Amino acid sequence: MGRALAEALLSAGYRTTVWNRTTGKADTLVGKGALRADSVSDAIAASPLVIVCVGDYDGVHEVLDGSVAEIRGRALVNLTTGTPDEAQAVAAWAAGHGADYLDGAMMAVPQTVASPDAFFLYSGSAAAFETHRDVLDVLATSYYLGTDAAAAELWDLALLCSGYAALTGFLHGAALLDTADVAPSAFLPLATRWLHGMIAFMSELADEAESRDYTTGVSPVAINQVAVAKLAHVSHSRGVSTDIHAPLQALLGQRVADGHGTDSFASVFELLRKQS
Amino acid sequence: MGRALAEALLSAGYRTTVWNRTTGKADTLVGKGALRADSVSDAIAASPLVIVCVGDYDGVHEVLDGSVAEIRGRALVNLTTGTPDEAQAVAAWAAGHGADYLDGAMMAVPQTVASPDAFFLYSGSAAAFETHRDVLDVLATSYYLGTDAAAAELWDLALLCSGYAALTGFLHGAALLDTADVAPSAFLPLATRWLHGMIAFMSELADEAESRDYTTGVSPVAINQVAVAKLAHVSHSRGVSTDIHAPLQALLGQRVADGHGTDSFASVFELLRKQS
Repeated sequence: MGRALAEALLSAGYRTTVWNRTTGKADTLVGKGALRADSVSDAIAASPLVIVCVGDYDGVHEVLDGSVAEIRGRALVNLTTGTPDEAQAVAAWAAGHGADYLDGAMMAVPQTVASPDAFFLYSGSAAAFETHRDVLDVLATSYYLGTDAAAAELWDLALLCSGYAALTGFLHGAALLDTADVAPSAFLPLATRWLHGMIAFMSELADEAESRDYTTGVSPVAINQVAVAKLAHVSHSRGVSTDIHAPLQALLGQRVADGHGTDSFASVFELLRKQS
Repeated sequence: MGRALAEALLSAGYRTTVWNRTTGKADTLVGKGALRADSVSDAIAASPLVIVCVGDYDGVHEVLDGSVAEIRGRALVNLTTGTPDEAQAVAAWAAGHGADYLDGAMMAVPQTVASPDAFFLYSGSAAAFETHRDVLDVLATSYYLGTDAAAAELWDLALLCSGYAALTGFLHGAALLDTADVAPSAFLPLATRWLHGMIAFMSELADEAESRDYTTGVSPVAINQVAVAKLAHVSHSRGVSTDIHAPLQALLGQRVADGHGTDSFASVFELLRKQS
């Protein structure tokens, strides 16, 4: 991923200094015009904007802890994947050493960096984001999510939530059709059409969850409970795993048991959100 | 739903005869030009194409069992929601009485009937579908899924699988962000963007599931296992339900335990599909 980021910057004509724990990994980039730093401190000292992208937050500390003097006064953008708590801890550490810290989460794979498919989430220093936005926009479409450094990681996880669920649901649907010898590629066009409709419907779910008024929506809990039970029944009878929808079945059952069967589907949000 | 269907046919200029168990329910339609039948038998005898849409398959039999003589030689389209087994049973019953049976599943709500958002799935008699396709296309975009009458109901369930999972994942993501006082409507635009990317990625999942070759794909099981564990950990630490992703976490853990950690994410399909 680091290479993809550096290549994007070089392609856009930015002077780019690179450092990697494995020296040889930078060779290709140097061949494309990158400047090679002999140490982390040299790499940091070379630019007003420092981008860190390593395996995890322990790695961030391993890389940066020996160069705290050089960090002062620079913008430090950390694209390493981690948790909201880890982001806040590094933000506090960076602030203690006089850096403008911006935490980032990359909604991309190396192949999509610098393409319209990629978007990166940022949170932390608004000044760092505004000052370097042009450079960051080279990597991906940039979204700034506020001054709390934890926000980018939290939004990353929220998006992963929705994405993983959709992918798993697609594979479950494909497994059901597999019992009738329907190929996954034959399922794809209608699944795509249906899911585009579901995404459009999420706007209503969002409105209801936000207002916490579930009395005006379409698609009551009790009707969905019957549909999901049917889904589980048919999956089971065809030898397909029923695990995937057991949590939703439990949530819908709980809403009905609590006397909310006529509320709309979106009301399961009340069971998912933090219980205060 | 029956009213929405009849209104669509009337608007398109088709001679439409209506019958409902509750006589008054047809009044509005008669006001719009529908012909009122005094009995089910009269309703069936009025047209070469008969569309049935009631609450469940028991209702289908209650309505039709007294009019077997009239069904012979007609196309019977059953849009009632049911299971694949129920569809096959009615198909056999209809064939026994000389009707051309077409089972249908409506991917629509009454408000979207006859709009570009609606699509209906059909399976069973190819002759009935071809002969009456122009009429059926008035109701929604029509997809014919083969001669097995069970197919429309099975595809309906497969689509519900993918749709429910996506909606639940969206609400879970919104619940995570709710812990940072981010409103669901603020989550919606990025969730929409991310999910469009996931839908595009499903094409790769379909290819891999179809070839059952999971060695060339991106996104290995072990990396996703770490990401989903992080999702569960952060959800838990913020007081948000972790139930939703427990099944996926178990599936990924099983793949790793089985020695398939370097296979791609799509390989969880092997655990979902029917074990032969």
